[in-house]
Amino acid sequence: MTSPAVAAVDWGTSSFRLWLLDAAGAVLAERRSSEGMLTAGAEGFAPILERHLAAVGAPPDLPVVVCGMAGARQGWVEAPYVTLPAGIDGILAGAVPVGGQARDIRILPGLAQRNADAPDVMRGEETQLAGVLPLVASGRHVVCMPGTHSKWVETADGVITGFRTWLTGELFSVLSKQSILRHSLGEDAVPPLPDTPAFVAACGEALAAGGDIGPSLFRIRAATLLQGRSPADAAATLSGLLIGAEIASARRVIALPAERVTLVASGALGSLYAAALKRSGCAVLQADADEAVRTGLFEAARRLGWTRPTSENTVP
Amino acid sequence: MTSPAVAAVDWGTSSFRLWLLDAAGAVLAERRSSEGMLTAGAEGFAPILERHLAAVGAPPDLPVVVCGMAGARQGWVEAPYVTLPAGIDGILAGAVPVGGQARDIRILPGLAQRNADAPDVMRGEETQLAGVLPLVASGRHVVCMPGTHSKWVETADGVITGFRTWLTGELFSVLSKQSILRHSLGEDAVPPLPDTPAFVAACGEALAAGGDIGPSLFRIRAATLLQGRSPADAAATLSGLLIGAEIASARRVIALPAERVTLVASGALGSLYAAALKRSGCAVLQADADEAVRTGLFEAARRLGWTRPTSENTVP
Repeated sequence: MTSPAVAAVDWGTSSFRLWLLDAAGAVLAERRSSEGMLTAGAEGFAPILERHLAAVGAPPDLPVVVCGMAGARQGWVEAPYVTLPAGIDGILAGAVPVGGQARDIRILPGLAQRNADAPDVMRGEETQLAGVLPLVASGRHVVCMPGTHSKWVETADGVITGFRTWLTGELFSVLSKQSILRHSLGEDAVPPLPDTPAFVAACGEALAAGGDIGPSLFRIRAATLLQGRSPADAAATLSGLLIGAEIASARRVIALPAERVTLVASGALGSLYAAALKRSGCAVLQADADEAVRTGLFEAARRLGWTRPTSENTVP
Repeated sequence: MTSPAVAAVDWGTSSFRLWLLDAAGAVLAERRSSEGMLTAGAEGFAPILERHLAAVGAPPDLPVVVCGMAGARQGWVEAPYVTLPAGIDGILAGAVPVGGQARDIRILPGLAQRNADAPDVMRGEETQLAGVLPLVASGRHVVCMPGTHSKWVETADGVITGFRTWLTGELFSVLSKQSILRHSLGEDAVPPLPDTPAFVAACGEALAAGGDIGPSLFRIRAATLLQGRSPADAAATLSGLLIGAEIASARRVIALPAERVTLVASGALGSLYAAALKRSGCAVLQADADEAVRTGLFEAARRLGWTRPTSENTVP
């Protein structure tokens, strides 16, 4: 195994991920936990980070680069928002050092759109964008980054010019767990497959309705009561309605260059969005979200001079 | 005081209301509590009802007519849904007796729309409709009944021909208490006034967007972070967005006769909907929701022969 050059950390509201990377960016070890900002705010950020670093055998002087909610005002150390328009690579230069630590730790800033009528913020997605910079370095692009708070980002020649947020993932969570619909979805809602008929139908309905799914949500409950539809059917319908509505809505407010979207997403969610985007008439170029944030963090480390090639920089 | 002729009960998911009525329908006493179906399902419906009847001094043979979720499958005694189209006055004839009680207790049925593509159900609102029957007895009408689950009902010559449900009240509740927006709205969200600028602006925005408020919800959070907007401003914005979206959405899927809506609503919510409906270009004829359900329950009692006029039927 080559020596580690840097630890890269994506520290979100409710999740923590750490990769130990060598000087070429190859992954030497990985850690995932649910010790997000909410947990770390109570227990302390440094002890959680050091415990994970110790678990992967990181040396005491290994530098760490962090993105996400650890840089929020209520996080570890505030990394103030960079205001749009912002060059994607310039964002990486704004890393804020965490004082009083034995090792060098830097937190990347988030982005703020300060338009009076469309204020918006992101923390973490800007680092994913840095990780897919080669895909958007020239020309106009629209990047869809689905999740708890889905971001749709407009770029021009590698500069972020605007973005908007949809609460899609959070709406699925609160509606499936806290609303009347929980009786229809049951305890353990499993994500549908992209070709699940109820997902396909609901997604098509939301697209046709221009994103207005107001009259469709309670129908999930009524379909259980009157038609005996299953919890899996209810979950697939809710997922299709919310994803279809996000895409219809985004296409209403954002002009797509050449009817093409760059999708940065992983796993089941990535497959559902890719299917829904294609159904809406978009060509889709997909990049993996986990790889994107890791690549962005590594790129930030490289700019800090933490990844100078050495004789060890060969994959074993 | 005249003698009571009947107790009228509106028993919802999370609320209980009882009126002691004389033979002319005048209110002799009223009780309100939060012992809705959820509480009563655990503690028992009969003890809760009898405690409230005793508190208002009801005689042991006083009959009781009930509407709402007490008639659901998971309620007290199931009063099966009446299927559309249904005459409003015919619904009142479907009251189901509660067996094994010392007094005569009847529960009114709910309504079901069994269209394959738009299944829907209501319990309680059909009794409110019966209470405003004179307003919709002839011609076509659209009735808006806002609440946790807002109902928009189409009637033709006193027959209910169709309805749709919007989750507006429940969306406000889960978004303001369970989502990221709770940090912006704070602990005790107070309803705005109809002329609160943030309500007016958000309502207009939702109407102009045809009910697609997807890109607007997270902006409430960003406006707190970037613009220092107050919790009251955030609550007024969320309220305006959701009410405006419901109205835009309903106007998309339901054709309004003569651009006129019959609004059955009480208090602050009624004022907000009246303002928003007028802003959308509708004429509004408003009836009080509490009075409507009480009148509907009394009308059901009258058909059961429980309100025969006697010499006592004079208001003191």
